[in-house]
Amino acid sequence: MISWKNLDTMKSYQQLLEAGKVCLRDAMQGENGKNRVEKYAVPMAAGLCYHYAAKAVDDETLKALAALAEEAQLTEKYQALYEGEVINTGEKRLVLHQLTRGQLGKTVMADGVDKRAFYTREQQKAAEFAGKVHAGEIANAAGEKFTTVVQIGIGGSDLGPRAMYLALENWAKKNGCFRMEARFISNVDPDDAASVLNGIDLPHALFILVSKSGTTLETLTNESFVKNALKNAGLDPAKHMIAVTSETSPLAHSSDYLAAFFMDDYIGGRYSSTSCVGGAVLSLAFGADVFARFLNGAAEEDKLAAQSDPLKNPDMLDALIGVYERNVLGWPATAVLPYSQALSRFPAHLQQLDMESNGKSVNRFGEKVDYVTGPVIFGEPGTNGQHSFYQLLHQGTDIVPLQFVGFKQSQLGEDVDIQGSTSQEKLCANVAAQIMAFACGKDDDNPNKAFAGGRPSSIIIGSQLTPEALGALLAHFENKVMFQGFLWNVNSFDQEGVQLGKVLAKKVLAHQTDGALKAFSDLLGI
Amino acid sequence: MISWKNLDTMKSYQQLLEAGKVCLRDAMQGENGKNRVEKYAVPMAAGLCYHYAAKAVDDETLKALAALAEEAQLTEKYQALYEGEVINTGEKRLVLHQLTRGQLGKTVMADGVDKRAFYTREQQKAAEFAGKVHAGEIANAAGEKFTTVVQIGIGGSDLGPRAMYLALENWAKKNGCFRMEARFISNVDPDDAASVLNGIDLPHALFILVSKSGTTLETLTNESFVKNALKNAGLDPAKHMIAVTSETSPLAHSSDYLAAFFMDDYIGGRYSSTSCVGGAVLSLAFGADVFARFLNGAAEEDKLAAQSDPLKNPDMLDALIGVYERNVLGWPATAVLPYSQALSRFPAHLQQLDMESNGKSVNRFGEKVDYVTGPVIFGEPGTNGQHSFYQLLHQGTDIVPLQFVGFKQSQLGEDVDIQGSTSQEKLCANVAAQIMAFACGKDDDNPNKAFAGGRPSSIIIGSQLTPEALGALLAHFENKVMFQGFLWNVNSFDQEGVQLGKVLAKKVLAHQTDGALKAFSDLLGI
Repeated sequence: MISWKNLDTMKSYQQLLEAGKVCLRDAMQGENGKNRVEKYAVPMAAGLCYHYAAKAVDDETLKALAALAEEAQLTEKYQALYEGEVINTGEKRLVLHQLTRGQLGKTVMADGVDKRAFYTREQQKAAEFAGKVHAGEIANAAGEKFTTVVQIGIGGSDLGPRAMYLALENWAKKNGCFRMEARFISNVDPDDAASVLNGIDLPHALFILVSKSGTTLETLTNESFVKNALKNAGLDPAKHMIAVTSETSPLAHSSDYLAAFFMDDYIGGRYSSTSCVGGAVLSLAFGADVFARFLNGAAEEDKLAAQSDPLKNPDMLDALIGVYERNVLGWPATAVLPYSQALSRFPAHLQQLDMESNGKSVNRFGEKVDYVTGPVIFGEPGTNGQHSFYQLLHQGTDIVPLQFVGFKQSQLGEDVDIQGSTSQEKLCANVAAQIMAFACGKDDDNPNKAFAGGRPSSIIIGSQLTPEALGALLAHFENKVMFQGFLWNVNSFDQEGVQLGKVLAKKVLAHQTDGALKAFSDLLGI
Repeated sequence: MISWKNLDTMKSYQQLLEAGKVCLRDAMQGENGKNRVEKYAVPMAAGLCYHYAAKAVDDETLKALAALAEEAQLTEKYQALYEGEVINTGEKRLVLHQLTRGQLGKTVMADGVDKRAFYTREQQKAAEFAGKVHAGEIANAAGEKFTTVVQIGIGGSDLGPRAMYLALENWAKKNGCFRMEARFISNVDPDDAASVLNGIDLPHALFILVSKSGTTLETLTNESFVKNALKNAGLDPAKHMIAVTSETSPLAHSSDYLAAFFMDDYIGGRYSSTSCVGGAVLSLAFGADVFARFLNGAAEEDKLAAQSDPLKNPDMLDALIGVYERNVLGWPATAVLPYSQALSRFPAHLQQLDMESNGKSVNRFGEKVDYVTGPVIFGEPGTNGQHSFYQLLHQGTDIVPLQFVGFKQSQLGEDVDIQGSTSQEKLCANVAAQIMAFACGKDDDNPNKAFAGGRPSSIIIGSQLTPEALGALLAHFENKVMFQGFLWNVNSFDQEGVQLGKVLAKKVLAHQTDGALKAFSDLLGI
């Protein structure tokens, strides 16, 4: 029997508060530090590994975290989720994104269908469609192949798919599976759509309109923008556009689209990269086989997340350590720092995933919680971040926990040897160095050159950023956020906080405002 | 006589702590809210205006902030800075980035020259060089025009120039002054350089190597990467590359470069967009006239920053309100949210500018301060952010102060009318709506749909993002950060926090490590 409890009502949380604190600076020195690196590691899917030696935990903390995991029934709640309970209580919906990449438990029936079969069928439809586009069987009116795919979507229909595309673009080029260039239109700023349209070969472009409800204003506006451009170029929009939407949306069975692929209300936008929202564009860009490999990596990670022992469950452990840092140690932000240029937009995706899921002040029963929940998430790729905001991370007055990601090999394999090492070696040397600099710091007679240390980090290490590794990485963070939502007892799957702005924006556009809102609208020329 | 005092030693700061707190939710309602919008605004340069009606301040707070500005001698310190005192005490350097765009006070002599004349001369050299490239007088070995310019640099040599280029790219295309496409190579990840090189027309590419010291390892590594590529294509690197560096660097007078343009130690990397670091690439991309207009906007804003009354000085007022939010109200992060796709990388630049400048724990005398300094800075363009992390901003447990930027007109002027409004109108309606949603919130019987409000924001509003407006915007934030550094009594112009990581990375590459560092290096395959 699952019991949904607030974090601060749990006995194990009180024990965690009282557990001894680790002096990371001391813990990471010498032989002890080396032993920690060997011991504090959990294998992930696709050959990745989560290393937490440089986190401010020790065996006592870990024991307390394991007790918290058990009392919070993290494994039971995860099972309830993937077996189809109504976990998104606010919106009274199931939460099934894991089902888009694998069947973890018993069959989930909803709306009269086996949902795993539904997601698989839609992916298969998208795969077949992509195959026909690549073969030229589906082509433009002149019978010429499409060469570019443009995703029109915002939020989860944009950030995740865009980050995944960028993550695999070079890998696909190197490995002979780059089929079509992908571009993205998201912002309602007309310069976004105009700029993308000005930069592509319109007669050979295929557009994907992505909106679950079929009513997202930004997306419909950008669709009109694109349709106008197509018409002005003498092209028929219906021959250049497909839709990814829910079966019940106005876009679902419309002759305005070459094809439609379906998702449903059980896939939140920020969790939709492994549904057709990511599947259509990634299958078109790289082929359905690459997308399938990406799903396999995610499915394998989802399986690991079902382990009840957090020391064998990298997603759960990452979640527990994050809650410890946020609620016990009191640190309000977390930086995500991939040492991989391919992951340049991965932090932006995680920013949505994490902040939109757990940036909540009420628990799943609508009661105000008395503790802090989701942190601010930000990040940029290393080594760029080192030459930017790392100053504050090293010597600022606040401590910001860090999550590094690194790979032994680059994707393209082109490299130069300068001063006795390759670029890739320099990249890896930098992330190793940063972990230790943050953890142990350095004394100096000049306080301006001294580093206090004691700044914790984890690192996920892999051989190379492949489709499987990317899937595992994505699922890792999705599952981390899910487990944290369980710990904070919030509903991680709704986003009521976006509604008020929408309502007020409509009033502005209808000129139904007064007071300060009217004054600001006037200033902005509306 | 200037006196450098810690924030918490100032009498006016104690008074600020005791000043009454504003209930923003109440203050922004009805007629009072409307009056605040009219009253709480300060004109900026280039037709921009800084609006702070939705900040948690009132006349009492503003009076206390003005007293703090006076006691902290902000105007006197700014004057000392632009008239050439050694403000960067840690590195014993002048701080002269304002001088790259205008002469604010008396002539500044250093290293035996008039520094304003020096910066002007170098900009003139870059302008003439760009003119010759555009005219085809400087061309590749085959006598063909260069069509692409690629900046090789990291940190301030990358983030600022890249953000400025993206900010003006569409404006330049629309206004007939787009001359050359610009690309940027920054990360030591070899996939970054390889990817950029694979995507350009190498025989027609001109590279700018940017490194003040001429020794930045990432940049020299990427230079070698580029030179190899040029040689492999049968091209002479010396005919395809220019340098932006200091006169004393090894790159300054080398036959490896077609030309060299100089900056000096008085221009910090993160403050170098208005020096030749930004000047060379922007003059090549858009013409020297556009770059000159950008400088004019910045110079005009710098002049406003010299106003001693903060109510007439948008940069100083923004700084004071930020310190109030950070130190008195206790909020640890700030989000920068431009409602302009052209400013997509402006937050990333500000992240470096702010966090690297003021992420310090010691004052300018090397003494530990007893208060918090620079906050975490992050941001993405609206409306994209609305569909991402705004959930936490609206309903999360922490308050994050916001800085909006919005323009009445788009840059390209291409638009569609959907549901009775254009995209640009929707964009502007959204930012107006967000300000009020954050400030006033909304009650609801369902606590999950309730918004507490009381979440403060400012907005900078302009007609259009022109070169002048961009210059003013950049200078505004540079000056804000400078004033905040004065208030916190930190040296905003060094970055000792980046050193330890560099030292340790060298040890890793030399295999001179043990303990945990060796263990991590082994895991990363070095």
